[in-house]
Order: sequence, then C-alpha cells, then structure tokens
Amino acid sequence: MENKIIEAINEIKRGTAEIIDIEAIEKLIKRYFETGENFYVKAGFDPTAPDIHIGHTVLIQKLATFQKFGGIVQFLIGDFTATIGDPTGKSETRKILNTKQVLENAETYKEQVFKILDPNKTQVVFNSQWLNELGSAGIIALASNLTVARMLERDDFSKRYSSNTPIAVSEFLYPLLQGYDSIALKSDIELGGTDQKFNLLMGRTLQKAYDMKKQQSVLMMPILEGLDGVQKMSKSLGNYIGVTDEPFDMFGKVLSISDELMWRYFELLSSKSINEIEDIKKGVENGTLHPKKIKEELASELVDRFHGIGAGELAKQEFEKVFAKKDIPTDLEEFIFEDEIWICQALVDSKLVDSTSQARRDIKSNAVSVNQQKISDDKLNLTKGEYILQKGKKSFAKIVIK
Amino acid sequence: MENKIIEAINEIKRGTAEIIDIEAIEKLIKRYFETGENFYVKAGFDPTAPDIHIGHTVLIQKLATFQKFGGIVQFLIGDFTATIGDPTGKSETRKILNTKQVLENAETYKEQVFKILDPNKTQVVFNSQWLNELGSAGIIALASNLTVARMLERDDFSKRYSSNTPIAVSEFLYPLLQGYDSIALKSDIELGGTDQKFNLLMGRTLQKAYDMKKQQSVLMMPILEGLDGVQKMSKSLGNYIGVTDEPFDMFGKVLSISDELMWRYFELLSSKSINEIEDIKKGVENGTLHPKKIKEELASELVDRFHGIGAGELAKQEFEKVFAKKDIPTDLEEFIFEDEIWICQALVDSKLVDSTSQARRDIKSNAVSVNQQKISDDKLNLTKGEYILQKGKKSFAKIVIK
Repeated sequence: MENKIIEAINEIKRGTAEIIDIEAIEKLIKRYFETGENFYVKAGFDPTAPDIHIGHTVLIQKLATFQKFGGIVQFLIGDFTATIGDPTGKSETRKILNTKQVLENAETYKEQVFKILDPNKTQVVFNSQWLNELGSAGIIALASNLTVARMLERDDFSKRYSSNTPIAVSEFLYPLLQGYDSIALKSDIELGGTDQKFNLLMGRTLQKAYDMKKQQSVLMMPILEGLDGVQKMSKSLGNYIGVTDEPFDMFGKVLSISDELMWRYFELLSSKSINEIEDIKKGVENGTLHPKKIKEELASELVDRFHGIGAGELAKQEFEKVFAKKDIPTDLEEFIFEDEIWICQALVDSKLVDSTSQARRDIKSNAVSVNQQKISDDKLNLTKGEYILQKGKKSFAKIVIK
Repeated sequence: MENKIIEAINEIKRGTAEIIDIEAIEKLIKRYFETGENFYVKAGFDPTAPDIHIGHTVLIQKLATFQKFGGIVQFLIGDFTATIGDPTGKSETRKILNTKQVLENAETYKEQVFKILDPNKTQVVFNSQWLNELGSAGIIALASNLTVARMLERDDFSKRYSSNTPIAVSEFLYPLLQGYDSIALKSDIELGGTDQKFNLLMGRTLQKAYDMKKQQSVLMMPILEGLDGVQKMSKSLGNYIGVTDEPFDMFGKVLSISDELMWRYFELLSSKSINEIEDIKKGVENGTLHPKKIKEELASELVDRFHGIGAGELAKQEFEKVFAKKDIPTDLEEFIFEDEIWICQALVDSKLVDSTSQARRDIKSNAVSVNQQKISDDKLNLTKGEYILQKGKKSFAKIVIK
C-alpha cells in the first residue's frame, strides 16, 4: 500500500476506542486514492441539544479526517424522535420539538460544526423524511428484525430490567430507527461514542436483514475527559469548554489542564498530524520544548478553530498581560461550589486558610482579595460566578459558584 | 332491578369463564332497558382463517345474546396485521393476505356468522382503517404506553423468554394494536377466549392511557371441548363440528357426544334460555325425558341454525332411517387414522378382530362389510374418508381416515 494510504488509515485509527470492520474502511480509502470515488460516513446528532462543547467535537474532528480522504459526511439530525418526544413524559431529556425549533437547532449545529467540517463534503439530513414514510406497517416490519432477548442484552436495558426500572416498549424501537437510518442513507461507515455501540451495530444488523450488499463499518470514539482529567466532559459537571466560550476563557481553560491530559487533547482534538505530535513529544522529552509553551499552542489552535485564525494569539497576549501584571499564576487550582458560599468558608474550602476564624482574622488584617480587590467584610457571601481568591502575596485559588 | 334486567344479565353471565367489570355491563343493560340506548360490543376475528367450527361459535352466540339486550356488535376483522403477515417468516400461522383475499374471507365470515348474528345490529369493521392512519409516530407513541416487563408477564411471552425461544420485538406491538382497536372503536365491552386475557385487558389499559372516560369491560368465554369431551375442539385434532358440515354429519356428530358434554354444549351453544334448560335437566333427572331424545333436540337445533329451520328434523329422520334399517347402533365408537390403512389392520385397530390373520379369514368367509357392502379382497386399502366397518351381525366400528 502506498504511504499516503497508510498515513490516512493511521489518522483514521488515531484515538479511536474501537473499530468494527476496519478492512472495509481500508478498501474505501484505497479506492478513493485510486479512483477518486467518495464514500458515506454517517453520524447522528440530537436536535434537542444543539449547543455543543469541545467533548462533542472529538467525533466531528474524526468526521473531518474522513473528509480529507474521500468521505462525504451524512450529518444526521434525529428530528423524527425529537418531534415525538418521550410520550411517557418520564424522561426530561426527551424534549418535544416542533419543526421550526428543529430547523433553528439545525442552523445552530451548522454554525458550530462547519468550523470543523467542510460544508462542501457534508450532507445535512433529517430522518423524519424516511421514518415518517415507513408508516405503521413499516415500523412493525422493522421491529420484526430483532428479538426481545437481543434488545435486553443492551447494557442499559439489561441493568434497568434486572433492577425493575421500567423500560417502555417504545424504547426498543429507537435503536431500530437509528439502524434504519443507515439503510435509508446507504451509509458505508457510522461514527459514534463507545456508549452507542449497540445502536451503531444495529445499522449493520438491519442493513443485512434488508438485503443490502454491504454492511456499514462502525468507528467508536472515546468519551473525552473534562478539565479535571477524570470525569467525562459535561456541562452539568462544569468541567467543560464550550465551543462558544469566549477566546480568553477558552484559552485559560486549556492552560488549566494537566500535562498528561494535554497529550490526550492533542490526540483527540488537534488537527496536527500524528507525526507532528510525535515530534513535539520528543521535544518535550529532550527538553528543547517546554510543556507550558506546548499547552499554549494547543489552546491557541482551539481558539483559532472556533474564533478564527489569529484569535488564539490575541487570547494568549491578553492572558499574559492580565496574569503577568497581577502576578497571578496561570494554572490556578479551581474549586467548584453548587451554592452561594460565605467568604470565610470559601477560603477554608479552597485551602487558603485552615479555619474560618483564621479567615476572619486575615480579612480584618487586609490580607484577602477577591478578584484583585481587597475586602474587609467578613460576612460577605459569594454568589453565582467565578472568583479569584488571594491571600497574602502568593496564595491563590479560583472558585466557581454555579 | 326489574326481572327482565336480571334475566338478561344472567344470560350474559351464562357459561362465561371470567368477566372484568360486570358492573359496567349491568349499567349498559339497565340503561338500554330504560332508555333504549345501544352500546358497543367488540370481538376480533382473524381474516386468515375464516372457516369456523362450532367451537368458535360459542363467542358468536354470546355476541348474539348481547344483541338481544341493546348491544351493537363490532365484528372486527384484523386485516392490518394479516396484510403485514409475519415479517420474520418464522410463523407459518401468520399468512400474508392481500386486500382482495381479506375481503373474500370477510364475506365467508359474514355468510357463517349471520346465521347467528343479526346483521342489522352488526358492524363489520377492518382495523387497517385506523391502524394505517396511526403512522410511524403513532405506533411509537402507542408503544410508549406499556413496559417491557409488563409485556413479559404475558404467559406465552414469559415461557418463551425463559426457555430462550425468540420473541420478535414486533410481537410486543400486536397486543398494543389490538388494544388500540378498542380506542378507535370506543368499545364498551370486548369479548374473547380465556387465552386472550392479556390482549383483552390491553384495551382497558390503553383506553385509560388515551384519556377515555370509560374503559371497556371484558368478557371471556371458555374454550369449547371437542367431541371427545377432553381436548379443545380443533380441526387438527379431528374432534370438531364444522359450521359447514352437512346436516347428516352434523346431526350424527352431536349424537356421538357423551351426556355430560351434552349439558356443556347446551350451556354454551343452545339458544334455549337458562330456564328452559333447567326444565329439561329436571325432566331427565326425574325420568320423564330421555337423554337421547334431548341430544337429538340439541343436534336438531344446531342443524337448523346452520342449514335453516326444518333441516334438523330432516337430518334426524334420515339418520333414523339409515341406522334403524341396518341395525347399526347410532353411538358407534370412532377411530381416527392419519394415513390410508390396510383393511385387515383397520379391523384390528378398531378392535373388531384380534389379529390381521383372523381379519383375513373373516374376509374370506364373507363376514366383513365396509359401508354395508360385503368385501372379499383382503388386500384392500382404505383411503381418505369415513367408513363403517362391520364384522358379523353385531360388531361395528366407525373409522375416519384423514
């Protein structure tokens, strides 16, 4: 195989959690390099939550990689189920949307993902188009292709069934609908998170049941860790970078991650090639490159991606200016609180003092600042927001109150 | 309550296996007697098998009883699922029908059931009408009303699941469709066999889920025993009376049942009132009526029902003529064979002789008749049909070869 094909396949494998039928993907790439023939790469998105964070872009980056090697992205908006919602009313996450909302959310998606994807190699499609057409009889025929036992093998169903947590019969239909999307779209490859494995394989199962010549390959991406490096990135955990975060915030958040997590983000988020990243790693190892500089480069790349070329450099300069002037370290430890908090308690919890009485004495002696302002009120309550606490000249903490 | 209302309710309860919400039925009957307002009684029929035997008419007799007291029968032909068939192809019983076949079979049904039901109080309806209209989204919304765990409580599902016999997801949808029929039809009562209990209750569950003011009552009829008095009446067991059986055969089959089974048939099949039957029973008990006479009356009633008034009396006369003349007892023991059989073997199996060599000698000595004809060929094979075998003057047996 030619070098460029091998390189392409390595880029596609990069950072993946699991690939089913890599051989078929290799064939598609090879054929593209030899004949220029395109192939179709599907990924589904939930139209009820179009605001994405950088964790979601791991998948989109991979789609962009495919676009470089002949892939046409089928950006599927799952509007069919969104317009039904959760008829049981039990699931809060299944909001019901009307067509106007679906289209609005689709526009929001496009705005965000076309910062990564090439619009000329992307088809935005809505599954209501073919799923409504199926009709009553079509849905029943579809449901005849899988057994109840097989459904109950799905990890979450199995757990819920054995713990007597109700599963509506309709929930058995959703994976089948997702699988049918792959039939309607004749997808060659489907991408998703590892948590979607069962549903992704459904596409293969059904393509076979419906006598399609080929079954789609499946490529699963891992779930990105949040800024803490431990839990998955999620809005509710507060450890996320939103793709619409302001440049200054985005830059700062990337700088706050650990060196170890930085390499993970490079692998999953950077557009730098595997070879380029290898070179950087070597530089850090032999001391010719400083990890902080590298982290700034990654931060800059991500800010550029979502705010335009040059935005990363500006953010970097602003960041340096603010923190250099105030002698605030750029890698502050961050503490998150769910509720408003008394200043003295916040000083204890962020480990700047050992007791609230000590905190009170420090405030009285003019040694405590909040966001660069000395404070004197030891009854102060901090409400929702972000604060930098400082005690004396050298002790800092960042706290976030949600 | 007035006497006629009490009588009506007793006729409705007669022979039932179980009634859910009898109070609602009583209200409907009472209202009918007071105001003349009708109510709706649903029963579903499978359009793939329109040839019914007398076992099926137990339910239809009950529908006729309701018609006497204000019930409008919703004679539901389940054509929706019949036109889908069993998409898995695994079930031979789920034949797929086209619309023309469905209509033809509906005509066959009508021909048969209008011998019992009053056409002016019967609506023949096809569920494809509203089930097709549901569409993809409607089916999914419908399926959200029941849990997987609840479905798996259904006796046959539970057994199949625990014995690892595959259950297609689509099979979970069929009970829901049957339940939805009751919503579309706004049925007040649904009738069915005891084996249908789960599906019948689905109508109640769904009527509630769809915010209908009232839920249907459910009335379940027992499964009728066949001529043997033990197993359920069924074509494959050969112990049935077909509603299209010739008068002579129908009459003879009824005469062949035991006295005990005769009372069961009276209860479930006769149009005589509870009081009339009580009087007959007393007559038999005190010796003023002979059980054989009573059985002839029942046979005559059934022949009249399916062949017109007077046909029963004719059948009776013909029967008496044939059997009286030939000295053939009317309560012959009957033997059923699956395949064609050698005459000597048939004589052994029907206990007329002890061995095939004895049979051969009896034939040679001119002592054996088949259907009143002496035979001399000891190599004779009996093929499909009914035969009366006779050895000497007094030994008879009836054999049926299927």
